[in-house]
Amino acid sequence: MKAYAMLKIGATGWIEKPRPVCGPNDAIIRPLAVAPCTSDVHTVWEGGIGERHNMVLGHEGCGVVDEVGSEVKSFKVGDRVLVAAITPEWNSVNAQAGYPMHSGGMLGGWKFSNVKDGMFAEYFHVNDAEGNLALMPEGMDLADACMLSDMIPTGFHANELADIQYGVALSFFCAGPVGLMAIAGAALKGAGRIIVVDSRPDIVEIAKAYGATDYIDFKKVSVVDEILKWTNNEGVEKVLISGGGSTILETAIKVLRPGGKIGNVNYFGAGEFLTIPRVEWGVGMAHKAIHGGLMLGGRLRLEKLARLIMTKKLDPSKMITHRFKGFEHIEEALFLMKDKPKDLIKSVVIF
Amino acid sequence: MKAYAMLKIGATGWIEKPRPVCGPNDAIIRPLAVAPCTSDVHTVWEGGIGERHNMVLGHEGCGVVDEVGSEVKSFKVGDRVLVAAITPEWNSVNAQAGYPMHSGGMLGGWKFSNVKDGMFAEYFHVNDAEGNLALMPEGMDLADACMLSDMIPTGFHANELADIQYGVALSFFCAGPVGLMAIAGAALKGAGRIIVVDSRPDIVEIAKAYGATDYIDFKKVSVVDEILKWTNNEGVEKVLISGGGSTILETAIKVLRPGGKIGNVNYFGAGEFLTIPRVEWGVGMAHKAIHGGLMLGGRLRLEKLARLIMTKKLDPSKMITHRFKGFEHIEEALFLMKDKPKDLIKSVVIF
Amino acid sequence: MKAYAMLKIGATGWIEKPRPVCGPNDAIIRPLAVAPCTSDVHTVWEGGIGERHNMVLGHEGCGVVDEVGSEVKSFKVGDRVLVAAITPEWNSVNAQAGYPMHSGGMLGGWKFSNVKDGMFAEYFHVNDAEGNLALMPEGMDLADACMLSDMIPTGFHANELADIQYGVALSFFCAGPVGLMAIAGAALKGAGRIIVVDSRPDIVEIAKAYGATDYIDFKKVSVVDEILKWTNNEGVEKVLISGGGSTILETAIKVLRPGGKIGNVNYFGAGEFLTIPRVEWGVGMAHKAIHGGLMLGGRLRLEKLARLIMTKKLDPSKMITHRFKGFEHIEEALFLMKDKPKDLIKSVVIF
Amino acid sequence: MKAYAMLKIGATGWIEKPRPVCGPNDAIIRPLAVAPCTSDVHTVWEGGIGERHNMVLGHEGCGVVDEVGSEVKSFKVGDRVLVAAITPEWNSVNAQAGYPMHSGGMLGGWKFSNVKDGMFAEYFHVNDAEGNLALMPEGMDLADACMLSDMIPTGFHANELADIQYGVALSFFCAGPVGLMAIAGAALKGAGRIIVVDSRPDIVEIAKAYGATDYIDFKKVSVVDEILKWTNNEGVEKVLISGGGSTILETAIKVLRPGGKIGNVNYFGAGEFLTIPRVEWGVGMAHKAIHGGLMLGGRLRLEKLARLIMTKKLDPSKMITHRFKGFEHIEEALFLMKDKPKDLIKSVVIF
Ligand SMILES: [Zn+2]
Ligand SMILES: [Zn+2]
Repeated sequence: MKAYAMLKIGATGWIEKPRPVCGPNDAIIRPLAVAPCTSDVHTVWEGGIGERHNMVLGHEGCGVVDEVGSEVKSFKVGDRVLVAAITPEWNSVNAQAGYPMHSGGMLGGWKFSNVKDGMFAEYFHVNDAEGNLALMPEGMDLADACMLSDMIPTGFHANELADIQYGVALSFFCAGPVGLMAIAGAALKGAGRIIVVDSRPDIVEIAKAYGATDYIDFKKVSVVDEILKWTNNEGVEKVLISGGGSTILETAIKVLRPGGKIGNVNYFGAGEFLTIPRVEWGVGMAHKAIHGGLMLGGRLRLEKLARLIMTKKLDPSKMITHRFKGFEHIEEALFLMKDKPKDLIKSVVIF
Repeated sequence: MKAYAMLKIGATGWIEKPRPVCGPNDAIIRPLAVAPCTSDVHTVWEGGIGERHNMVLGHEGCGVVDEVGSEVKSFKVGDRVLVAAITPEWNSVNAQAGYPMHSGGMLGGWKFSNVKDGMFAEYFHVNDAEGNLALMPEGMDLADACMLSDMIPTGFHANELADIQYGVALSFFCAGPVGLMAIAGAALKGAGRIIVVDSRPDIVEIAKAYGATDYIDFKKVSVVDEILKWTNNEGVEKVLISGGGSTILETAIKVLRPGGKIGNVNYFGAGEFLTIPRVEWGVGMAHKAIHGGLMLGGRLRLEKLARLIMTKKLDPSKMITHRFKGFEHIEEALFLMKDKPKDLIKSVVIF
Repeated sequence: MKAYAMLKIGATGWIEKPRPVCGPNDAIIRPLAVAPCTSDVHTVWEGGIGERHNMVLGHEGCGVVDEVGSEVKSFKVGDRVLVAAITPEWNSVNAQAGYPMHSGGMLGGWKFSNVKDGMFAEYFHVNDAEGNLALMPEGMDLADACMLSDMIPTGFHANELADIQYGVALSFFCAGPVGLMAIAGAALKGAGRIIVVDSRPDIVEIAKAYGATDYIDFKKVSVVDEILKWTNNEGVEKVLISGGGSTILETAIKVLRPGGKIGNVNYFGAGEFLTIPRVEWGVGMAHKAIHGGLMLGGRLRLEKLARLIMTKKLDPSKMITHRFKGFEHIEEALFLMKDKPKDLIKSVVIF
Repeated sequence: MKAYAMLKIGATGWIEKPRPVCGPNDAIIRPLAVAPCTSDVHTVWEGGIGERHNMVLGHEGCGVVDEVGSEVKSFKVGDRVLVAAITPEWNSVNAQAGYPMHSGGMLGGWKFSNVKDGMFAEYFHVNDAEGNLALMPEGMDLADACMLSDMIPTGFHANELADIQYGVALSFFCAGPVGLMAIAGAALKGAGRIIVVDSRPDIVEIAKAYGATDYIDFKKVSVVDEILKWTNNEGVEKVLISGGGSTILETAIKVLRPGGKIGNVNYFGAGEFLTIPRVEWGVGMAHKAIHGGLMLGGRLRLEKLARLIMTKKLDPSKMITHRFKGFEHIEEALFLMKDKPKDLIKSVVIF
C-alpha cells in the first residue's frame, strides 16, 4: 500500500508498505480523513521520540472498517468509525487502574506513529478494536471526526486534570488547537472566568468564541502581575497548560491560589528538570496540585465526545482553517503544520 | 418594621414586627429585591414544615447591608450583597464534613422562613455573615441576583449530585424554574444529551434555550419505554429530579444504566416511603447510585455562581416571566406562584 | 471431564461434560481449591437466577493454567493463578466507564455458574485471561487464595461504596463471611467505630478479631434506638450491608447521619420494592447516599488484595471453619453451606 | 502569666505576658500537656518563619477550658479539650473551598507560634472555638492527646494527599514522628506494602510496629534502584514524603508508576526551586500527581482521630520516648528536640 512516512529524523516521503495484518482482536481501517498534528512535526523534525525509519506518520483520523479479527463483535466491514490517537490494551493492569493511556508502561497507549505505523496510509491497524473503535454518528462531518482523535480529548483532559468546577476562575496557557479545545472544555465544565495567555492577538477572537473571557499577551505584560492584579492578589483556582517551555510550571504555581490545581497536557520537550518555586508552592504545603497526563482514548470516550458534536454543544470546525481534498495532499497539510503560517490553526485532509 | 408573613397554615398577611437584632457575627440586610418560591407556597398552604405563626416569609433575595456585628470584617454598612436561601453555621461539625446545609442537624442550614423570619420585610437577619454574604458584582441585575439564592444553586446541585461528566446522556424530570436551572447546569457540565420529561409543551422552548436536546411529554407516552428506545435499551447515564411524586425514583432507576447516578433536589412531600424497584436496581448490585441533597449556600458559592452570570455564561433572566416594582407587590407575586398561570415560570419583586 | 453441577432448580449432582474450549483470549484452568458460596445455595435451592440445567457450579477458586489462547502473553501453562468470581470483558464500554462488573449489561461480569459453567470441575474456562487472571504469590495458602475470588473483594467493596474515611463510625449489618471481610475492610480503611448488628453471639469474637468494636443483637434490642443512643442521637456516618431482608435499607437510613453513605453488597432476593423512609431521608435532601454494587474482579484487584495477605495485613483464614481434602468432597462442602451448622462460617475444598 | 518564648532568632527563654483576651468566638485554654515539635526548632534556630520577638512557642497540646466567648455554645469552663496546631476561620472562603488550613491566605490556618502566641504558657487563646476545639474523650492519656495536635493529623494527611487504596505498594521517605504516623495512617488505609526509606536502623522496629513491611537505608544503597528492583521495574503506586531535602521530589517521581501519586507533608526549608525530572515525569503526561499540603485541623477531625485512639486502632504512645512532669520542663523537652539524641522520637510535657 501507499503511505506517507518519516524516513528518518528530518526527512519524510511517500513509501510502499505491506497492508497491515489483522489479529483476532484487531481491525484494519481504510482512512476517510486524517489530520497532521504538531506532534508529527516534533517527531520528524525535532526527533521528539528518537530515530525511526520508514514509519508511517499520523495519529488523527477516521475511516471505514476494512477487516476485523475473529474476536471483534461490535464492528463489521463497512462500518464508519472514529479512532483515537491513543489505543490502549484495555485488559492491562494500568487500564484497570484507570490509566489506560499507560497500558504496558508509561505512555504505552500511544502506538500510532510511535511504536507502529500511523494513519497516513491506504490502511491502518487498530489493536483491541472492541475497545478502541466507535461508530461514527450518521451525518458527522469527516473533519470534525478527525478532531475527536486528539485535539478534543487532549484539550478536554486538561480540564479533567484540573478538576474544573462551576464558576472557577482559571488561566490558560497557550491557545493552539489543543488550547482552543481546552478552552471549549473549560466552558463545558462551567468555568466562570477563562483568562487566555498567548501572544497571537489573531487567535483571541476564536478563543472567545470557544468561551474565553479575558486575554493576556505575555509578550507585553507580566503574566503573574496581571493575573494577581485581576484576582485581587489571590490568584486563579486552576491553570491549564497546553504549551510553553520548561519554566511554565513556575508561572502556573505563582498565579495559583492555595487549593488550586494545574492541568497539564503539554509535551515538555527540553531540559533535564521542570521547576517548582519553593516559596509560592507553600514550602510544600499549599495544596497546589500538579497534574499532567496523556489523553484518554477508547470507545466510550469517543462516543461521549461525538455526542457533544452531534447535539451542537461543541463545534470543532471553527478551528479547522485549512481543508484539503485528496490523499495526495497529506504532505502539503503536514508542511503547513511545520511552517505555521499566521492564518493556520489546524489542517485536515479528506480522502 | 413592615413584613409579609405566614399568619398560620393557609393564611398570609402584612404584619408589624421589630427589626431583627444583630449579634457579633450577624448582619442586618435591607432587601432590594425578593422572589417568592414554590416552597413558600408549600409552607403556607400545604403545611409543609408544620404550623407557624406570624413568621415572615421569603428566602430568595438580595439587599444592602444595614448593620454588621463586631466580628464581621468583610462587609460594611452600604455594601450590596447576595444571600443564599441556606445560611449555615460554618464552624459546625457537619459543615466541616462538607455538608454545611446540615449544620446543627438534618437540613439545619435552612433557616429563613423555617426556623426564623424570612426576607419579605423591611429588614432581615443573616447569621454568620462572614460566611453567608457575598458582595454583589457591580452591574448585576437585581432580579438575576435573586436567582442566586435558591433557583440556580438548587438546580446546579442536582448536577453535582449526579456527577455529570463530558458527553453523558441524562434524563431530567420536571422543568420548573429549578428544573430549568438544572438543565442550564447540565449544559455547563458538558452533558451531551439532555432529555427533558415534562408535560408543558410551552416550557420546551425555554428548556432548549438552556440546553435541553430532547423532550418527552409524560402524559402522552411511557417515559421508560421512550428513553430505553432512544438509548438502544441501555438507559441514560444520569437522571436529575427536581419534581415528581413518590414513585419518581422508580422511573429514574428504570431508565438508568448500571453505574448511573440519580441527582435529586426534589422535596418529597407525601407518603411514608419512596420505592426502589428491586430487579431494575440490580437486586442491590447495579451501582445505580441514589443521591439527594439540599443546596449549598455560602459566600464562595455565591461568588462563583455570580461570576457565571457576569461573564454571560448563564442568563437566569430567561425564566423570569413576571417582574413587579415595589415592596407592596409581594403578595401579588406570591399568589402568582400559588395560582401558577400558564405563562408563569418565576416572579420577582424589586423594591 | 467430571463436574459437580446444578441439574435443575433444587437438584445437584456429579455429571460428565466436555473440557471447555480455549479461544484466543482465554485460559483453561485446572482448579487446586474451590469454595462453595451462599450464592451457589441461592442458585440451586431458591432459583435465584432462574432455571438452569446441568450447569457446573462454583465461582470461588484458584488453580493451575492448563492452556492459554494465542493472544494471552502474561500467563503460561503451569502458572498458579488467582481468579475472581467476576470476569469482565475489559474492553467493553461499561468497563471503560469504571464498571467492569457490568460489562455487556447489568451484572454482566458475573459469568461463572450463571451464564457459563463454574469451577467445580476438573477444568474451567476464563475469558479475557490477560485481564482476569493473576499470578498466585509464592507461599500463599490455597484456602486463602479462594477467599480472594469473592469473600474479600465483595466485603471490601462495601467499604469502597460507603467511602470509609479515617475515624468514621459505622454500623454493619450481617456478619457472615462477606460481612467479616467487610469488617476487616473497614478496619483497613481506618474506621474508628465498627458496630456489628447480627444475632449470632458466637460470631462476635471473630468479628472483633477482624476489627469490630461494638455489637448489637437485633433480636434483643431495637437497632435504631440503640445506635442513636450510642451516637448521641446523631447516627453513624456509614452503614455497610451484606445481608438482611427488603426493609434493611429503612433501618440503614434511620441510623445514618446527614451526609452519610450506605454501601450495600447484599443480594436482595425478594419483593418488588425496597423502601426508603421519606422523612428520615430528609424528604429527599439529606445527602444520605445509597450505593450498592457487585464486586470488582480482575488482575489488578487480585494482585492488590493478595498483597494484603502476603504482608499479613489481612488473614482470611480466621473465618475458614471447614477444610476438606479431595475434589470428591465438593458436595459435602456445598451442603454444609446449605445447612449452615452453628459452627460454620466458610468451607473450602482443596483438591 | 508565665510563658516560654522565642526571644529572637536563636534565643529562647521564660517571659511574663498578659493572659490572652477572649473575644465572642474565642476560648482561653489552660494547658494540661504540651509537646515541642521540630518546627519549633526550625522557627527558633533556623529562622524558618522569619524574625519574632517574645513570641510564646508551642502548637501541640491539650487543656482545660478557662473562659469562653459569648457565641461559644458547645464548650464550657472546665471542659477538657483537644486542640489542633491549625485553627482556621471556618467561615472563610478557603475553608468553604475545602481548604480551611489556608483560611485568610496560604497556610493562614497556622496561627500558634507563628502569627500569635503559642501554647507553652499558663494560658493560650483559641480562635473560632466552636470549630477548633473538641471534647477530650474520658480516659484519654494526656500525652496521646498532644499527638492529635500535629503528629497524627499531619502524618495521616500524607495518606489522604496520596489517596491510598487497598493493597497499594508505597514508599515512604523519612521516619521521624510525623513519618511514623504516616506509616500508621497508611496501614489504616489498607496499603499492602510499605517501604520505609530512612537511615536510622533503630527506628525500623517501631516503623514495623506501625505497619511498615520493608526498609531501605538510603546511606547504603540507591533508593531508586532498590525500589525498582523490588517492584519488577514498575515502581510504587504512591510515595509519601515527610522529610528530605529539595531533591526528594526527584527520587519520588523516579520510583513512581504512571498514575501514581505523591503525598508531601514535608516543610521544604531551602533552595529557590524543587525539581521535577522531565523524562521520568513522562514529559508532562505520566499522570504522576504531585500533592503537598498542610494538615487539616478542627473539631470534626479531632473527634474522628481521637476515636481511633479510644478504640485502640491507633496507639501514638509507642513513639513518645520522653515524658516530663511539670510546666518547668518545657525548656528541657524543647532542647531535646533540638539536640536529637539517638533514642528520641518525641517528647511530651505533662503539667
Ligand atoms: Zn495529535
Ligand atoms: Zn426557594
